Amino acid sequence: MTIRVGVLGARGRMGQEVCRAVSAADGLDLVAQIDQGDPLTALTEAGAQVVVDFTNPDVVLDNVQWCVDQGIHVVVGTSGFTEERLAQVRSLLAGKPEVGVLVAPNFAIGAVLMMEFAERAAKYFDSAEIIELHHPQKVDAPSGTALRTAQLIAAARASAGLGEMPDATKDEIDGARGATVDGVRVHSVRSRGLVAHQEILFGTPGETLTIRHDSFDRASFMPGVVLAVRSVGSRPGLTVGINPLL
Amino acid sequence: MTIRVGVLGARGRMGQEVCRAVSAADGLDLVAQIDQGDPLTALTEAGAQVVVDFTNPDVVLDNVQWCVDQGIHVVVGTSGFTEERLAQVRSLLAGKPEVGVLVAPNFAIGAVLMMEFAERAAKYFDSAEIIELHHPQKVDAPSGTALRTAQLIAAARASAGLGEMPDATKDEIDGARGATVDGVRVHSVRSRGLVAHQEILFGTPGETLTIRHDSFDRASFMPGVVLAVRSVGSRPGLTVGINPLL
Amino acid sequence: MTIRVGVLGARGRMGQEVCRAVSAADGLDLVAQIDQGDPLTALTEAGAQVVVDFTNPDVVLDNVQWCVDQGIHVVVGTSGFTEERLAQVRSLLAGKPEVGVLVAPNFAIGAVLMMEFAERAAKYFDSAEIIELHHPQKVDAPSGTALRTAQLIAAARASAGLGEMPDATKDEIDGARGATVDGVRVHSVRSRGLVAHQEILFGTPGETLTIRHDSFDRASFMPGVVLAVRSVGSRPGLTVGINPLL
Amino acid sequence: MTIRVGVLGARGRMGQEVCRAVSAADGLDLVAQIDQGDPLTALTEAGAQVVVDFTNPDVVLDNVQWCVDQGIHVVVGTSGFTEERLAQVRSLLAGKPEVGVLVAPNFAIGAVLMMEFAERAAKYFDSAEIIELHHPQKVDAPSGTALRTAQLIAAARASAGLGEMPDATKDEIDGARGATVDGVRVHSVRSRGLVAHQEILFGTPGETLTIRHDSFDRASFMPGVVLAVRSVGSRPGLTVGINPLL
Repeated sequence: MTIRVGVLGARGRMGQEVCRAVSAADGLDLVAQIDQGDPLTALTEAGAQVVVDFTNPDVVLDNVQWCVDQGIHVVVGTSGFTEERLAQVRSLLAGKPEVGVLVAPNFAIGAVLMMEFAERAAKYFDSAEIIELHHPQKVDAPSGTALRTAQLIAAARASAGLGEMPDATKDEIDGARGATVDGVRVHSVRSRGLVAHQEILFGTPGETLTIRHDSFDRASFMPGVVLAVRSVGSRPGLTVGINPLL
Repeated sequence: MTIRVGVLGARGRMGQEVCRAVSAADGLDLVAQIDQGDPLTALTEAGAQVVVDFTNPDVVLDNVQWCVDQGIHVVVGTSGFTEERLAQVRSLLAGKPEVGVLVAPNFAIGAVLMMEFAERAAKYFDSAEIIELHHPQKVDAPSGTALRTAQLIAAARASAGLGEMPDATKDEIDGARGATVDGVRVHSVRSRGLVAHQEILFGTPGETLTIRHDSFDRASFMPGVVLAVRSVGSRPGLTVGINPLL
Repeated sequence: MTIRVGVLGARGRMGQEVCRAVSAADGLDLVAQIDQGDPLTALTEAGAQVVVDFTNPDVVLDNVQWCVDQGIHVVVGTSGFTEERLAQVRSLLAGKPEVGVLVAPNFAIGAVLMMEFAERAAKYFDSAEIIELHHPQKVDAPSGTALRTAQLIAAARASAGLGEMPDATKDEIDGARGATVDGVRVHSVRSRGLVAHQEILFGTPGETLTIRHDSFDRASFMPGVVLAVRSVGSRPGLTVGINPLL
Repeated sequence: MTIRVGVLGARGRMGQEVCRAVSAADGLDLVAQIDQGDPLTALTEAGAQVVVDFTNPDVVLDNVQWCVDQGIHVVVGTSGFTEERLAQVRSLLAGKPEVGVLVAPNFAIGAVLMMEFAERAAKYFDSAEIIELHHPQKVDAPSGTALRTAQLIAAARASAGLGEMPDATKDEIDGARGATVDGVRVHSVRSRGLVAHQEILFGTPGETLTIRHDSFDRASFMPGVVLAVRSVGSRPGLTVGINPLL
């Protein structure tokens, strides 16, 4: 039995790649390609059962709400999901307990493992900082993946009873020490030539542990997107990240 | 109740650090410091219950045999433990089922996590290679940690049914592609200025995942050594690595 | 006045990119696209003044000889140029002093600067090693860029009167310490997900200096190729690398 | 003929190392070791000809002024020297044209080469960002070396007529994009386990060039300090960095 799939943001760089991947995947049927200006009703007219959203932070929540209201499952790759926004998604879902929404900051297997390892390592080190590096067309800083990683590290440190990280800085040029996300410092580098990269540095006396993911090609995200599309229908409620699917 | 500890290789750089750490640790009592030329019987005379061995690959197996024969538990940090050598230790232990031997290629928490993560990631990637980098006084290449990491990766790939890694090399200057350990390529860099470092690179289409550990100071190994000394007596038989103790 | 350009290896991955870049460049006219099976005489028939060769190490010297004999200037990007092969090119040119041949192991500006910096830094450090990392379809190891870098470092060390690098290795699994090129150790990593990367590590007591180049896209080589095509006619004899053109 | 040397900040970590290095160097005589609370007149009483200052940003300018007034040459390793502060030193020197002051953000040969290479590479790349990483006891962010590197890159870009770097960021958590120093983004990482490290990333379409320096030990700075002490007396006026001495 095939799954009928619609794509939101279908003309964007990621959206085009998703359309290609869905078309090529066994058991998935690409039934609607929607972008700015197209009516969302095209999704219901085409009978979409799962929608993939790679749009932008300004419209994604409205899209999710509309789909959930129609009983359509959603896979979201759009970035910008803070804890606050995830809470909004949970409340959208409260009245539709049978619908599944999967929000993933990153669909690359390497990125997913990076986040898992960061969460596992966090409690053993005094210090943890994140450096994410992307092409200069990116509009948000830090990236969604970096935000999620910081949240995971912060939660793991809190569980282990670790306090604040050591930092004697008192004379700082604004911004030098990065953004603070749940107490974790995040640095966003933007440079021509880059694609999507992230490094997490953990330190304790005498040693450091570094975990780094490099995406050189959007194609690296597609196995994860296809897996999410196949799974979201059988996971009612909110799922964050594709780790639970591995 | 304190544990009576002897150190073999006590005048070496690691041995001295171990003596210092054992002396400073609660519940451990440093009762014998042995080095080349000293009789092993000093260990039994001093009533050592656990011996820590940081000697060299030529003598370590004899040391372990002697200790096991006397019923003394052993923590081994000396490098060079291939699968073959580990099998020898297992057979030494066959007649003394109550004695514990713990052989660890690396006692730094970051290195232990690096190996754990490498084992976990291995099945998701087509390619995996190891680069280890050390100070130029090191006599063995690859390092014990790199050997162990390669074994773990190879075993994880085999379990997952992965075949050989892709490699079209046909025109090679001898040694360019590194040493082959259980089918995994390992590259050993030696440079002034370095201490002890290792990087594992995993690759699949469009992305790479890198895990790196940097030891800047021998002190980083001591928490792991002390933990091993405390635990080895209650773990009869052979234990490889300190992961099981975490 | 336009320059009439022929491309050898025109159907290969680099060759196709070169044809595209030459066609798009002001003042260059793509007059011949030759690959395996095509007669070289098509170059003279088309009146090519400069030929770009991205073929393979087995045929490149014959190609260069033929072009030089016809008085055609050549830009060579094919890898495998040892000192011995460069000497062969010089002797080919001896009888045709007006012809220019430019052999470059790498046309990316970042790679060219990397080699320049390596040459400049070499005399200040006790140790220097090269790690090059490429996609697994590459047939030669080490890469042409790594060979050239090793030669430059070795020459700079010799000029400064530096002796052998420190290295106490005595217990080595074959290949662990890499290939030796003019006394410089070179390590070749091959992994899916990679494109073309190189790192040079310099070390002296207490510090290391690392220079790294990452090529994510063949397009990065084209500005250098076009510059070489424009310049080679006014540089009789052999030129190695595009540094002299910057 | 020996040079009589005084050290300011003699009980600090760097100061102690400097005292040791000066005592051990041929032709240098350590005549005064001054720290907080000691009168500066001890320098003139001891006949110091050159003073080395590793104190802190709050007091260093007063120290330099006092020394210059007495006709004593000064080597300054204290950090925090913006263009504005360098201008203040120049004006202090205006009335004492025979006195030399050398201000260096970093005395390690690798760091000096890193800055030289950054300046040379800057004009060839669209993007350039600096990441500096230090132990968490450091009070200033960014480091003096990072500030100096940013100034050099900015000046080289301006000379080459390069405009602003590409950056589409519009949705930023405060500080994510780092500090802006003369238009160059600088990110300061602080972690236990680190010593002193800096990485400069240059990018242009399809490629990046990275230059990284790692200091593992304060000893790495001493050859540069000794060279500066020997040279400063014959370089009247302000010298910035030790590059001109190489």
